[in-house]
Amino acid sequence: MLEAVGALLLEAGYDGLTVDAVAERAGVHRTTVYRRWRDVGALLADVLDTASDDPWSPPDTGSLEGDLAALNQEVYEALAGGGPNLTTALIAAGFRSPEAAAALSRFWEDRYARCAVVVTRAAGRGELPGPADGRALLVAATAPLYHELLLVRAAPEPALPHRAARAAAAAARAGAFGTPR
Amino acid sequence: MLEAVGALLLEAGYDGLTVDAVAERAGVHRTTVYRRWRDVGALLADVLDTASDDPWSPPDTGSLEGDLAALNQEVYEALAGGGPNLTTALIAAGFRSPEAAAALSRFWEDRYARCAVVVTRAAGRGELPGPADGRALLVAATAPLYHELLLVRAAPEPALPHRAARAAAAAARAGAFGTPR
Repeated sequence: MLEAVGALLLEAGYDGLTVDAVAERAGVHRTTVYRRWRDVGALLADVLDTASDDPWSPPDTGSLEGDLAALNQEVYEALAGGGPNLTTALIAAGFRSPEAAAALSRFWEDRYARCAVVVTRAAGRGELPGPADGRALLVAATAPLYHELLLVRAAPEPALPHRAARAAAAAARAGAFGTPR
Repeated sequence: MLEAVGALLLEAGYDGLTVDAVAERAGVHRTTVYRRWRDVGALLADVLDTASDDPWSPPDTGSLEGDLAALNQEVYEALAGGGPNLTTALIAAGFRSPEAAAALSRFWEDRYARCAVVVTRAAGRGELPGPADGRALLVAATAPLYHELLLVRAAPEPALPHRAARAAAAAARAGAFGTPR
């Protein structure tokens, strides 16, 4: 059923996502859907929480800049593929449903927690001048991609993932994230 | 009438924004609204294009880091005030209406163009090691705020505006934005 939710979101957005449509797409009775989720917000939250069960871990390239660039490349490919993508559809849904918004927050926090190892490894290799706020570093690296592609809706620029990674790594080397929260 | 659009967006979001509601709020006949805008997307586009007519210019504090921090403080106050805000409502509307999305893109581009002077001034003061991609620098400084407050929906953290400014300025001083587009 969660696959049906993703397919519907991509095709018709949040407005096309109804319990009836999910039931039809998944080939189950609508009461089966209602038994598990009381509304569309709860359904969306479940899609996002399920995504947190995947075994994803951040790339390990041997350098901070390389890890951030590889991470950004994944984000870029998810957002800049042309045509509808599930990431954008879920973020758009977060502006419609408080439950989806809360699930999105949990999803992001889980991803940032998994990525903390990127900063720990960099510190271990001596790439940082001292303790760093890993979350701030990771947000600095990735935020420009979401900003340009999702909010500003600028034309996708293939140099963007690496440029944003390079800038965040340079700031980290300069000690700009030196005050852990 | 544009004020009525803003008030309605804040109160009821995109779904509450109908031509009838705008006419009632503005105290005009619905045909008056229809004569000027054929639909809600066109109305929203006009609100955003009108915002570009304001005399806003970026703060001038005497240093790159200071200018970016002051800029970020403005963004932070717009987004983190608690309760609904027009910036978030307009960005949410951009996920609903292609016309609002296009107008938002124009609005952002106009703001980044006006902010280019922040980078030019920094270069003039010798704060940068060489030519810099001003747009990339400005996005690096501001994107973490939109990311944390609008997408991740993290709890507003008063240190965020200055921390993001400090990181972008450090990256700029290290030459990380050295390849102008």
